[in-house]
Amino acid sequence: MKSQVSIVEDILSANDQLALSNRQQLDSTRTFAINIMASPGAGKTSLITQTVLGLRHLYQIGAVDGDIATTIDADQIAALGVPAIQINTGGACHLDAAMLGNALLQLEMEHLDLLIVENVGNLVCPASFALGTHRSVLIASVPEGDDKPYKYPVMYRGVDIVILNKIDVLEAFDFDVEYFRRGVEALNPNLGFFPLSCKTGAGMDLWLDWLLKELTTYVPGNSRANN
Amino acid sequence: MKSQVSIVEDILSANDQLALSNRQQLDSTRTFAINIMASPGAGKTSLITQTVLGLRHLYQIGAVDGDIATTIDADQIAALGVPAIQINTGGACHLDAAMLGNALLQLEMEHLDLLIVENVGNLVCPASFALGTHRSVLIASVPEGDDKPYKYPVMYRGVDIVILNKIDVLEAFDFDVEYFRRGVEALNPNLGFFPLSCKTGAGMDLWLDWLLKELTTYVPGNSRANN
Repeated sequence: MKSQVSIVEDILSANDQLALSNRQQLDSTRTFAINIMASPGAGKTSLITQTVLGLRHLYQIGAVDGDIATTIDADQIAALGVPAIQINTGGACHLDAAMLGNALLQLEMEHLDLLIVENVGNLVCPASFALGTHRSVLIASVPEGDDKPYKYPVMYRGVDIVILNKIDVLEAFDFDVEYFRRGVEALNPNLGFFPLSCKTGAGMDLWLDWLLKELTTYVPGNSRANN
Repeated sequence: MKSQVSIVEDILSANDQLALSNRQQLDSTRTFAINIMASPGAGKTSLITQTVLGLRHLYQIGAVDGDIATTIDADQIAALGVPAIQINTGGACHLDAAMLGNALLQLEMEHLDLLIVENVGNLVCPASFALGTHRSVLIASVPEGDDKPYKYPVMYRGVDIVILNKIDVLEAFDFDVEYFRRGVEALNPNLGFFPLSCKTGAGMDLWLDWLLKELTTYVPGNSRANN
């Protein structure tokens, strides 16, 4: 009989294989994909909405929304006129590569330049499951507090971009942006950091500039390690 | 070879046994225990701090703080002069009954009237693992958004109390308290609901009144089903 530990290792290893397969499928249709992760309520759907509104005149965009129970997020994205697939995880605390693989089958990938994947709202579980996307983006938000990179290092480590959302309420909260940023950069020396507000639009241009640059320099099959 | 499903069932069943053992141990020392759950940054440590400040002249209080990596929360509670045990889950997304059982061994339980357990910041995983506490409390916060009971029903279902924290910033966010409350009450018809602000103190008296009433009417061994 196998131990629990070896079964968990098998599951993670199988996930990595499927993530690689997703990556190959994305590259075969020249679709650049990002994985958006955050706590519940940090602003994943708001960021995706603003990103779609900012780039849809330039690129064909699709979305995959992971949720444990509802279709609220996918409905909101679909209302923007972009194809959006809902993944209901049935209670699981993260997306995995198999779930994303199934969603890719339901999208006309050859028409998509950019695929935005919204992970389940969680600051622990999604870190352990690669999806095969090209970049991973973690959204923090001002009301969560400036200590989160110190308290959830597994989630913050290894992401490509940290967005700090809801900077329009900085004054109402005791949030030290430099303390937060030091915590983030200690875990990721070369990471991109974008403070912004999805509500007011402040700072959105720098995030969209970064994403535009990634899209224009994207070479399929020439990516860094899986995430 | 056992299937993954049956191993998961064994783990949950073993956890329930340990939760029952924790409950018996708590009752043997007449210690009323509550399990506080929430998203990262909703205000678990702030609520515990304000609760300790409000009740420490009446009751002997201890705390157990679950965190995936740091001792920040336990240090903050210990600074109030109450015994506080840190559980480092080593990356796991929830406390379990075995972890709480180990923490109980490190506290002088016979001196404690109230034990406050701070679970890992997560709106998915803690729901599946009973600890043996007498009541479970879920903290939502205004900046998370009013749709969370609809999107995370597994977590909201079965709790005894929902606290809505950060009502001091209600005006800065588009948060419909009645919509939120309807979502909560659809899952829990008889649940207690306390909107409050740990920052300004607004609403804290109703929460403390509830807790005082629970403490004064607590009969060891006469509790409802485990949680």
